[in-house]
Amino acid sequence: MSRTQITAEPGIPQIIITREFDAPRGLVFRAFIEPDLLGQWLGPRDLAMTIDRYDARDGGTWRYVHSDAQGNSYGFHGVFHGDPSPDAIVQTFEFEGAPGHVCLQTATLADRGPKTLVRTVSAFQSVEDRDAMVASGMERGARDSGGRLAELLAKLQAS
Amino acid sequence: MSRTQITAEPGIPQIIITREFDAPRGLVFRAFIEPDLLGQWLGPRDLAMTIDRYDARDGGTWRYVHSDAQGNSYGFHGVFHGDPSPDAIVQTFEFEGAPGHVCLQTATLADRGPKTLVRTVSAFQSVEDRDAMVASGMERGARDSGGRLAELLAKLQAS
Repeated sequence: MSRTQITAEPGIPQIIITREFDAPRGLVFRAFIEPDLLGQWLGPRDLAMTIDRYDARDGGTWRYVHSDAQGNSYGFHGVFHGDPSPDAIVQTFEFEGAPGHVCLQTATLADRGPKTLVRTVSAFQSVEDRDAMVASGMERGARDSGGRLAELLAKLQAS
Repeated sequence: MSRTQITAEPGIPQIIITREFDAPRGLVFRAFIEPDLLGQWLGPRDLAMTIDRYDARDGGTWRYVHSDAQGNSYGFHGVFHGDPSPDAIVQTFEFEGAPGHVCLQTATLADRGPKTLVRTVSAFQSVEDRDAMVASGMERGARDSGGRLAELLAKLQAS
């Protein structure tokens, strides 16, 4: 199984995450835009995920909440820019615990025959914002999400 | 009069524009969020400006069109993220001639007594996108806008 690669270069307010999945592009795209599927893989394994809204179209908004067993919850929301397609899913991303700190995410899904390479570029308002995101445990979330998405795609293809 | 400073460092997908204005922060803020004022200074001097919508609040959208004497028009739109304040006006920005290319802009207005330092950070999806924006004549637009805003602020304070 492919591993999640995370790149965060010094001085550049950006994080790039790539991972190849053993599934065709159309199926991977569905996992990104259908909330029933998204809720099964996005986020750390130990947090429960509740999707409040997920309107995957140009100008549509989304919001979800991650909750832990201790009753803490973490809300996130954003806005889609352009109609999502496998060529680009563009959205803003805000953690409600840090208002005013916004990130712009662009996910592209490259067709590799039976496999799909997913590349997500996150653009931050500053290097400090980017570093705060890295320090918040974003790496664990990204690795868990990648592993969970691979498992979901395998399950969907087996069924 | 202060000059517009534009910083676009190699390899960093960002443009930073700063300019100090001879006007108090509250007035400069009004010029950013009131569409009647914005339409008097934003953009190159030789283009006419039509504001389609400008809903300066969290989640509000904006759109304007620049038109030249030859009948060409250039549409731009975006979404406010968070309620604008002098501490931060955060919005996305898309040129309708290049769909899918989105930029995240953060303007901060620093109080310098009778003067105000405006700093705008534009975060791009890639260095290529940033370079395309620079090549499009964005520098002229930024310098014209800064000069026109200085003139408008002087006029508002004289009246």
